[in-house]
Order: sequence, then structure tokens, then C-alpha cells
Amino acid sequence: MQHSGILAKRVDAVTNRTRLLTVARAVFAEAGLDLEMHDIASRAQLGVGTLYRHFGSREELLRAIVTQTAEDALAQMRLAIQPCAGDPQVTLQAFVAAGLRVQQQYQPIFAVIRDPRLTKLFDPAYGEAMRAQFLATAREVVERGIQAGRFRENLDYDVAAATIMGSFTGIFDLLSNNCPLDELEQRLTHLLWTMLAR
Amino acid sequence: MQHSGILAKRVDAVTNRTRLLTVARAVFAEAGLDLEMHDIASRAQLGVGTLYRHFGSREELLRAIVTQTAEDALAQMRLAIQPCAGDPQVTLQAFVAAGLRVQQQYQPIFAVIRDPRLTKLFDPAYGEAMRAQFLATAREVVERGIQAGRFRENLDYDVAAATIMGSFTGIFDLLSNNCPLDELEQRLTHLLWTMLAR
Repeated sequence: MQHSGILAKRVDAVTNRTRLLTVARAVFAEAGLDLEMHDIASRAQLGVGTLYRHFGSREELLRAIVTQTAEDALAQMRLAIQPCAGDPQVTLQAFVAAGLRVQQQYQPIFAVIRDPRLTKLFDPAYGEAMRAQFLATAREVVERGIQAGRFRENLDYDVAAATIMGSFTGIFDLLSNNCPLDELEQRLTHLLWTMLAR
Repeated sequence: MQHSGILAKRVDAVTNRTRLLTVARAVFAEAGLDLEMHDIASRAQLGVGTLYRHFGSREELLRAIVTQTAEDALAQMRLAIQPCAGDPQVTLQAFVAAGLRVQQQYQPIFAVIRDPRLTKLFDPAYGEAMRAQFLATAREVVERGIQAGRFRENLDYDVAAATIMGSFTGIFDLLSNNCPLDELEQRLTHLLWTMLAR
């Protein structure tokens, strides 16, 4: 009985943390760095004490929001290309779909993620490591296409990978107001395939 | 004498406005939306009254910073491709150089330009019009290449233009910490040329 009581408490703690972080991300998307701890606690229908128990300070909460967003975005993009190891065209399509979906999902957070007041809460090495991992994921798409003999051989891997990553931002910023996302996904996949294929 | 006195005052007013805006952009790049009117006036060695005479409120000053940055970035990119009307390769190179230079110059401002608290100070039509003009400038690079018979004919103009614009962000974000900008300019120009050329 005692054990199940402890377990229940642990489950509650995990649930509360998840709930608080979900609410915090929504508040952050509206208020940016001005988010208020009281506001988050009350929207999550939990006490401010509980919020501070999970995240010791406003800064710690901001760090958790950024970390979770960046790592979830990376995980989605990695997962998208996992099952497509065989076919470079399917891999490219899945990667484009994930890249645009992540832009849509996290646009309000990406809009403020480079704010100097936010980046100074992190060791610069963390940002550098995250950027390297996004780049490596896009590189994998390029490398697989070359290894399978479907992409041009003489591609500059890093520049091609960074261009693909940038295309998600460019397409989402400049075209998503006037064109549905699934159509943009088709058009971008087609363009990149045409340009990368040998 | 009276006339030249008025003229001198006008020249002073223009100089002060320019000076205030230059300082305000530097402060904005450090402090983001938390910039303080007092801080700007004192760094510009002018009174707060002068600052308010030129920019009626903090919001008006923020609008002026964003407007001037976006319009200057656009002007630089347009100007870069102006004299190269003849040769698509020279045009592409000049456009890439301007695109990366603008990223470097305005990176701290671009980092917060999409902050929801900032975008709500603008009519959404303004943002839409600016995006359309950036897109149109990149489209011109693509169209000239196609018209000159140097680029593939079947390119999706808008998606290619948005991808080129996005490549500047992607390259700057992901690679500029580890590679000099002029080298990235060469590598990106080469990649885009290879991918766009017929």
C-alpha cells in the first residue's frame, strides 16, 4: 500500500510537470519572455508552490521550454527519416513534411528562441551542439541520396544540408499565408528533388 | 538669416532623428523589447524630450526600428541585383552576398523581429507586403536566370525564391560559427548555381 502511494505521488509529479510545461509553452508563445509564473500556475490549475517545486525559477522554466521545444523538433525530424532508410525520395519527402510541420507547430516559440535575453540563459556550447545535430540530420538525407546514387555526387554536404533546413523557414515564412501546408510540402519536395537529383 | 536658421534647425532635427534611431537599433539588439527610452536618449547624448519629439512613444520607436531594418535589408538586396541585369551567374552571386551580409548585419534584430509583442504593433498587411517584396526580389533572380536560358525552365518560381531566401538564414544560423562568411558566400553561390542551372 505504501509503495503504491509513493508511485501515485510520482505519477502525479510527472503529470504535473508535463501539464505545467505544456501550459508554460502556450503562455510563452503569447507573452514571450514576459511570461508570469502566477499566470502559468493558475492556468494549469496548480499552486505557484508546485510550479516552483518543478522549476526553481523563471529562468529554469524558460530553459526547460527552449530545451524541450528544440529537442522535440529534432526528435520529430529524426524520426521522420528513420523508417525510410531505403529510398532517398521517400526520405526527402518525409523530411520536408516533418520540417514544415515543426515550423508550423513551433512558429511562435521559434519567433523568440534567439532573443538575446533567452540565449544568455544557455551555455553557448548547448546552442552549438543543437545546431550541429539539426545539421547532421539534414546531412543524413543528402548523404543517403548520394550513396544510393540518386543525388549529384559533387554536392557540398554541409551547405546543401543548411539550405534544406533554411528552406523550411523560408517556405513557411514567405508562402504559408497564401498556400496550404500540404501543397507546399509537395512543391518543396519536388523542387529539392529536381535540384538534388543527378 | 532667418531662413538659414530654419534650415539649420531642420538639419539638426534630421541628424538627431538619425542618431537616435541608430542608437535605438543598437540598444534594441542588446535589450530587445525591454529597451528603455531614458537609456537611448542618454546614449545618444540628447534629452528624453528630444527623443519623444521624434518618436511619440516607445511603440512608435519600436515600429521605426523594425520598419527601417526591414526596408534597409530589402533595399540592400534589391540594389545588389540592380547592376547585374545581364548575367544570371553574377546576379546570383551578388544576391547571395547581399543576403548573407544582411543576415550578419541584422542578426540581433532579426532574432526578435517576429516577437508577438512586436508584430502586434503592426497592421498584418504591412508584414504581408514586406514578405511579398522580399519574395519578389528573389523571384527576379530566378526569372532572369530562366529568361536568359541558364536555369531549368520548369522551376517553381515562388518555392525556388523562398528556398533561396531561406538558405541565407540556414547557412548563417548553422554554418557561420565555423566558416568565414566570404567562403560561405562562394560555397552557397556554387551550390545554388549547380542546382538551378539547366
